[in-house]
Amino acid sequence: MKLTRIEPRSGTALLLDKGQSLTVVDPAGCQVADLLAFSRDDVREVLSNGRTFDYEEMIRLSVGNRLWSNRSQPMLEIIEDTVGRHDFLLTPCSRDTFRHFYPDKPEHRGCFGNLAEALAPWGITEDDIPVAFNCFMNVPVRSDGKISVDPPISNPGAKITFRAEMDLIIGLTACSAYASNGGAFKPIDYRIE
Amino acid sequence: MKLTRIEPRSGTALLLDKGQSLTVVDPAGCQVADLLAFSRDDVREVLSNGRTFDYEEMIRLSVGNRLWSNRSQPMLEIIEDTVGRHDFLLTPCSRDTFRHFYPDKPEHRGCFGNLAEALAPWGITEDDIPVAFNCFMNVPVRSDGKISVDPPISNPGAKITFRAEMDLIIGLTACSAYASNGGAFKPIDYRIE
Repeated sequence: MKLTRIEPRSGTALLLDKGQSLTVVDPAGCQVADLLAFSRDDVREVLSNGRTFDYEEMIRLSVGNRLWSNRSQPMLEIIEDTVGRHDFLLTPCSRDTFRHFYPDKPEHRGCFGNLAEALAPWGITEDDIPVAFNCFMNVPVRSDGKISVDPPISNPGAKITFRAEMDLIIGLTACSAYASNGGAFKPIDYRIE
Repeated sequence: MKLTRIEPRSGTALLLDKGQSLTVVDPAGCQVADLLAFSRDDVREVLSNGRTFDYEEMIRLSVGNRLWSNRSQPMLEIIEDTVGRHDFLLTPCSRDTFRHFYPDKPEHRGCFGNLAEALAPWGITEDDIPVAFNCFMNVPVRSDGKISVDPPISNPGAKITFRAEMDLIIGLTACSAYASNGGAFKPIDYRIE
């Protein structure tokens, strides 16, 4: 089935029906895609990293793990994953994170701004954007709790597939930050089946 | 200064002005207190574990670390901490988590229900409740990402003190779950200075 492209440093929104699957592909390798999910019945029901960590008893999520909502409902299940290294700790990059981490580089609205624009037609505002599931993002946690944002280990063509457990509005980006993708802004592809 | 008691399995809300400090005390030891913070200027500005992990580059937070809002502003700084082991990964226990983790035990509205009731006078609803900063909660992260909820290492009289970086509404509980406090429900004390 045909892939749809998300151009570098941009984002999109899409509808995913219960039972459909969404495959996110890293076509060039070493790129991150921030993924958000909102219930189509009520957009106040939204992806929650904390509820997910609670129920999955795991912060490194891969095949068989489900991503849960703030209302304790499963939203997505990971059904295929050729990488096994994703992040659910960190928020989407934004103007504020650019100013903080890259004071000498041009400011960019980042995944946060891209997601806010893409999701605005559903009445979703910046304050409604939670921690994203960051596909392919490589955030090692040291034993003392220190974290770092390292280049993704995803090779060209790497992919992760989610099955929807409810009717969803999905936000999805090709990440805009320097650290998360090793400094090279690349596209992200996806398909719905 | 006098301590105020939060009875076992209950919660409260309080106002904390910018510059004031809040000390949370575990009087009997081995108990957890879920802490939430909302900006008093606009309660849509709220504690964010993801933004905090971003800016502090650390998931084990202690003295010198700041807790950040979803709008990338510091809300609280940890200025004293006799324990050094707290959690910012997991959501407040709730009716749903009781059904999931303790199907044979009586259901309880948990910290989530206690916080929702305490914060309702400010127009804060269940959907507005983010991941809490769980004082004294002991959640080891293994190298493979697996997490567990172990008994707190806090001794009787253990305490953590936060200084407010903005005018805040604080939600605070004496935790209601079995696992987080080793099965013994105990009070939590606090004072504002």
